[in-house]
Amino acid sequence: MTKLKWGMIGGGEGSQIGPAHRLGAQADGLFEFTAGALDHRADAGRAYAQTLGIAPDRAYGDWQEMLAGEKDRADRVDLVTVATPNATHFQITKAFLEAGFNVLCEKPMTMTVEEGEEIVRVAEKTGKICAVNYCYSAYPMVRQARAMVRAGELGKVRLVVTNFSHGHHGDATDADNPRVRWRYDPAMAGVSGQFADCGIHALHMAGFIADDEVQTLSADFASTISSRVLEDDAMVNFRMAGGTVGRLWTSSVAIGRQHGFDIQIFGETGGLRWASEQPNQLIYTPVGGRTQIIEKGEGGLHADAQRLSRVSIAHPEGFPLAVANIYCDLADAIRGELRDGLPNAADGVRSMAAVYAAVASAKEHGAWVDARPPMFR
Amino acid sequence: MTKLKWGMIGGGEGSQIGPAHRLGAQADGLFEFTAGALDHRADAGRAYAQTLGIAPDRAYGDWQEMLAGEKDRADRVDLVTVATPNATHFQITKAFLEAGFNVLCEKPMTMTVEEGEEIVRVAEKTGKICAVNYCYSAYPMVRQARAMVRAGELGKVRLVVTNFSHGHHGDATDADNPRVRWRYDPAMAGVSGQFADCGIHALHMAGFIADDEVQTLSADFASTISSRVLEDDAMVNFRMAGGTVGRLWTSSVAIGRQHGFDIQIFGETGGLRWASEQPNQLIYTPVGGRTQIIEKGEGGLHADAQRLSRVSIAHPEGFPLAVANIYCDLADAIRGELRDGLPNAADGVRSMAAVYAAVASAKEHGAWVDARPPMFR
Amino acid sequence: MTKLKWGMIGGGEGSQIGPAHRLGAQADGLFEFTAGALDHRADAGRAYAQTLGIAPDRAYGDWQEMLAGEKDRADRVDLVTVATPNATHFQITKAFLEAGFNVLCEKPMTMTVEEGEEIVRVAEKTGKICAVNYCYSAYPMVRQARAMVRAGELGKVRLVVTNFSHGHHGDATDADNPRVRWRYDPAMAGVSGQFADCGIHALHMAGFIADDEVQTLSADFASTISSRVLEDDAMVNFRMAGGTVGRLWTSSVAIGRQHGFDIQIFGETGGLRWASEQPNQLIYTPVGGRTQIIEKGEGGLHADAQRLSRVSIAHPEGFPLAVANIYCDLADAIRGELRDGLPNAADGVRSMAAVYAAVASAKEHGAWVDARPPMFR
Amino acid sequence: MTKLKWGMIGGGEGSQIGPAHRLGAQADGLFEFTAGALDHRADAGRAYAQTLGIAPDRAYGDWQEMLAGEKDRADRVDLVTVATPNATHFQITKAFLEAGFNVLCEKPMTMTVEEGEEIVRVAEKTGKICAVNYCYSAYPMVRQARAMVRAGELGKVRLVVTNFSHGHHGDATDADNPRVRWRYDPAMAGVSGQFADCGIHALHMAGFIADDEVQTLSADFASTISSRVLEDDAMVNFRMAGGTVGRLWTSSVAIGRQHGFDIQIFGETGGLRWASEQPNQLIYTPVGGRTQIIEKGEGGLHADAQRLSRVSIAHPEGFPLAVANIYCDLADAIRGELRDGLPNAADGVRSMAAVYAAVASAKEHGAWVDARPPMFR
Repeated sequence: MTKLKWGMIGGGEGSQIGPAHRLGAQADGLFEFTAGALDHRADAGRAYAQTLGIAPDRAYGDWQEMLAGEKDRADRVDLVTVATPNATHFQITKAFLEAGFNVLCEKPMTMTVEEGEEIVRVAEKTGKICAVNYCYSAYPMVRQARAMVRAGELGKVRLVVTNFSHGHHGDATDADNPRVRWRYDPAMAGVSGQFADCGIHALHMAGFIADDEVQTLSADFASTISSRVLEDDAMVNFRMAGGTVGRLWTSSVAIGRQHGFDIQIFGETGGLRWASEQPNQLIYTPVGGRTQIIEKGEGGLHADAQRLSRVSIAHPEGFPLAVANIYCDLADAIRGELRDGLPNAADGVRSMAAVYAAVASAKEHGAWVDARPPMFR
Repeated sequence: MTKLKWGMIGGGEGSQIGPAHRLGAQADGLFEFTAGALDHRADAGRAYAQTLGIAPDRAYGDWQEMLAGEKDRADRVDLVTVATPNATHFQITKAFLEAGFNVLCEKPMTMTVEEGEEIVRVAEKTGKICAVNYCYSAYPMVRQARAMVRAGELGKVRLVVTNFSHGHHGDATDADNPRVRWRYDPAMAGVSGQFADCGIHALHMAGFIADDEVQTLSADFASTISSRVLEDDAMVNFRMAGGTVGRLWTSSVAIGRQHGFDIQIFGETGGLRWASEQPNQLIYTPVGGRTQIIEKGEGGLHADAQRLSRVSIAHPEGFPLAVANIYCDLADAIRGELRDGLPNAADGVRSMAAVYAAVASAKEHGAWVDARPPMFR
Repeated sequence: MTKLKWGMIGGGEGSQIGPAHRLGAQADGLFEFTAGALDHRADAGRAYAQTLGIAPDRAYGDWQEMLAGEKDRADRVDLVTVATPNATHFQITKAFLEAGFNVLCEKPMTMTVEEGEEIVRVAEKTGKICAVNYCYSAYPMVRQARAMVRAGELGKVRLVVTNFSHGHHGDATDADNPRVRWRYDPAMAGVSGQFADCGIHALHMAGFIADDEVQTLSADFASTISSRVLEDDAMVNFRMAGGTVGRLWTSSVAIGRQHGFDIQIFGETGGLRWASEQPNQLIYTPVGGRTQIIEKGEGGLHADAQRLSRVSIAHPEGFPLAVANIYCDLADAIRGELRDGLPNAADGVRSMAAVYAAVASAKEHGAWVDARPPMFR
Repeated sequence: MTKLKWGMIGGGEGSQIGPAHRLGAQADGLFEFTAGALDHRADAGRAYAQTLGIAPDRAYGDWQEMLAGEKDRADRVDLVTVATPNATHFQITKAFLEAGFNVLCEKPMTMTVEEGEEIVRVAEKTGKICAVNYCYSAYPMVRQARAMVRAGELGKVRLVVTNFSHGHHGDATDADNPRVRWRYDPAMAGVSGQFADCGIHALHMAGFIADDEVQTLSADFASTISSRVLEDDAMVNFRMAGGTVGRLWTSSVAIGRQHGFDIQIFGETGGLRWASEQPNQLIYTPVGGRTQIIEKGEGGLHADAQRLSRVSIAHPEGFPLAVANIYCDLADAIRGELRDGLPNAADGVRSMAAVYAAVASAKEHGAWVDARPPMFR
């Protein structure tokens, strides 16, 4: 099986996200890193791309140059990953989709709901894949959880409780550090701080596992460090289309939580718990029965959970391979095999609608508001 | 040191709460079980009291008989525990306080805010102790947490997040079981189900550790099993007088959570985590530092934490001895040593005010309301 | 039910073990603390006994005085607890048994195998109860484990692996502290240090749960702090009568382990794990199945596990109530109800035989030796 | 930086180890999969290699053909991974080293000590790299542990306790399954079963972290399933050159342990604990202090731990990336940067010497024997 050709925009030298995508794309030998516009400094980007093995003529200075250079090649890239600053995602993603490329866009897909809807429409029109990197949803045991819900193993889902809280922005003496500060500055981060950053991962996960859509929400935002304009702590209550009750807490001042992303799903006949720091186990309790530990790699898992793990039971697979799983699904999808677990433009715009809804609700003291993009109402 | 004399109302044969109080009162040899009106069936109560070693003349048929029998004795009981059905707490507690007895009342102390305020006034007027059994607050490591906050070891507290959720009422096929059903029936349980049952333990704990008072709240209630009138799941956001943000989730349909009561406290310079299923450890992270495990029994703990543990480090002490710690504090208080950790009538009425506030807020779709009893506004 | 009368020898003011026994005997209201010779300083012991509520005529100056004072009383104590320094256990236990008292002896029951066999013979001759305080075996979930083995739920037991290791003697700068040093000094501690102190708890537990007897063993001892004559770290391999393989590690220099006592039992059809720091859970894996968490208090536990717990599921019960469970079994046994879980003089002598066997084996570089007392060969 | 060229022998279609090496070599973009003799069925191997993107002229039918094909090429592979059945490792590794290739050999490197010494000599003579895949030693937090020991942060190491036990061979009804049975059959597995399979990982780890060499050992082997000739459970006590005491338990019948590989290191001034199922945390307790959790990715880690992690704190990295870390070190070593953490032929022969020593000791009832290869005595 020939490798697919892959290009990346952003993810230059020193970025965290660049290596994660390169590993994700290459770990399973599915993609060949063929083209890139890796840095906003054109020369630096071209040079770095070549140290990573990209041919000089496909080491581009910016995304426009890359679009121009790739679009008429017979051997053009099969997939473009957009890992640039958030505010540029919309423009780049749209342009590449319109030119007939498949795209994997980092989250958030856009800065507004309107832009998000535009991407959905463009993707539909062109028939190209537009995936969004909600990579936590690609952990095998998250896929197992979703498959259990779909198979009815929990009965109707009554309640989803999810947290995505850390304390890495909890040091007030570090609050002016530019790498922290921008996140709470509307000029750079948009309308929301912590909820838009981490909360939407959790909200996506709730819908993903419960196999349902968030319909309405009520939010309580707080800026616990007073210099912050945007929230560093948020609680969002929600209801899903099927009636499921949701609770989501997200914080960046929860000192001691390193990466506390967890989710609990409670249905009529059982409960599940998954946590991103122990991603290889899924804790399951049937109603009236004992709590059981479902292990990645055990016999009898649902197909999606089996397909996306590489090594045997109790050999942990971590975050970089969850990203790689997104690329596995993408490779399949590019080759024509439908992967319905792949987060897409509809997920991207739903997140953005939820962000705007939460901001509006928080301003109105927790009023319940519609969380759906207009196009999906 | 002579043992103090102790009497109990309620807690008859087959009750869960009776043995817990008997063990709590007697474990440390501080109280002698001297009198009791243990059962609403007078004869059964008298007989059972005698099998427990109470003299026939102090084995009473009901609380009125006990009040009459004890109040004029020279050797009357030093403490009366009220462990009867919730709706009777107010009347009995008030009567014994007015007759000059010290009282430990089970939670909830009353069914209304007005009754709660009345108890506060009566306790103040008589100068007698009126304690309320928020026994989780008597775990040594909870006392350590509170002492750390008071000593400024976390800096100003920004955020408290607490959960008290279980799944023991999650089986819809068992929802008509009388032992489950009454909790969701306003005729028996009052205005609130799960929040009044478990949530107020968590809310008390938040105030206790943060050493602050809940001022306003916003609630979202759900009856996830449709036959229930009262809520079986609730989320309450709150603000404390000092500005601390609070988040409280409580549920009885969280299948797989056996007794998930935990609390996290996040301040300017550190975070703490305590969970009732691992009560002998307190997890502490200083800002910018590593997470540490504080163990019950280790050297250098705050005085209150040391005083209320019995065996050496890593020998667990559990729930019954947390109840016993309430009795330890009561014995000291009766003998005149102020124990400011002892939950009292003010705590009792604050809980009731929070319950009514949450019910009102939930009805108004999460409107923020004052959570304080009128007397403390 | 009238309380039984209870006396204690040793456990004076400031001792750790005294309060543990007093709580154990009194927590459930089964025993009344009636007599005591609590201190090697006669006056101090008499005075302290009275502050604990013992009548002056039963507050004795030493054990001989107590024996003389109690043996002819009509209302003499029903049970005597021996909690004196190790070297005196034999003499006192023997004297009280011979005078017709029931005895609960702290471990080690004796300092030699010969003494141990003598106690077994005396107990048999007098028909009195001689229990030994292997209190860990009285945790409800340990009883559950034993009952599961007996019921065949694990099939034949192939392997038992147990550890009892802590690091509280790991500070070489503290090694001359008298409270630490005596343990490694043959003049005070006898032939063995850490194995005789903690290891025999683990060895007893192995036999208790596997429901079998240790037959042969091979030991490797080390004094990792060079000033110590006796071992501070030991590994003991053993075989049980039924062929079960055993592995036991015990250490007092395992810095970071606070109280690391755990046991794993592996049979033909399943495995179990229990740890003293999480005593309310028993981890069970059926062969080919998922790991399950068995909770104290859940429905369907074996009778012994149910009988010895007091509060509902997920409300932890800790070490002091495990000691109390020994007293529960003793109260039943004194009243004539056979409690086969109660550790007895045969267990006491088996431990002593294992200590001498391990010492001999370690001296012979791990030679396999018979671990049984001569009387049981 | 141009990718290095990499070839593999073994690891054909359906093998577990093949994908692990391909991911390890390619995840970080350091190696290009250039040549392979992947299967003992020549045609199948050639075909499979080509589906993996290898050019037809470098898709070989067996290792001899590959050696012949590669050795005279100007662009020959920079590294050959040997992932064939154990009995062939020696011959292939030796041949490739002698032809001037760098080799990564799966464990065990050889079947005898003599062969192992031969590899050490050949590697030395040719100056080529001969690494052995003790991949657990490449986890970042294992490197951190070793660096802490080397930096003296634990003081002198007194004691190492390690376990590598699972229950996947615990089902007697599955014992005749060929994939299980061969491991206990001397004709196929050699002199040792479980110790040679898993135990040597743990023994290597002990030496690796303690930065010392195993000198003598005493072993107790058991075949708990009676049809097995070789051991399925083993306990090995050992002493290191610097006096450190060692304890190692390994089992394949420990039902419920999925992959229980853990190690504890206790020194004069602190203790460490690491477990392969939670590989991103290292538990550290300074003597007299509190237990701390050291997280992969936190600030201030030792250089080796930093270098070998890819994503930020609390984003787990698992087993496949530990294998990838071996390839990272190999890439550096091939380019001339000394990586002293890379397990090498000396480690390989030490393991084999320990296996033969343990077998001999077990036969002599635990006699202490020299565990070193003759060449290192």
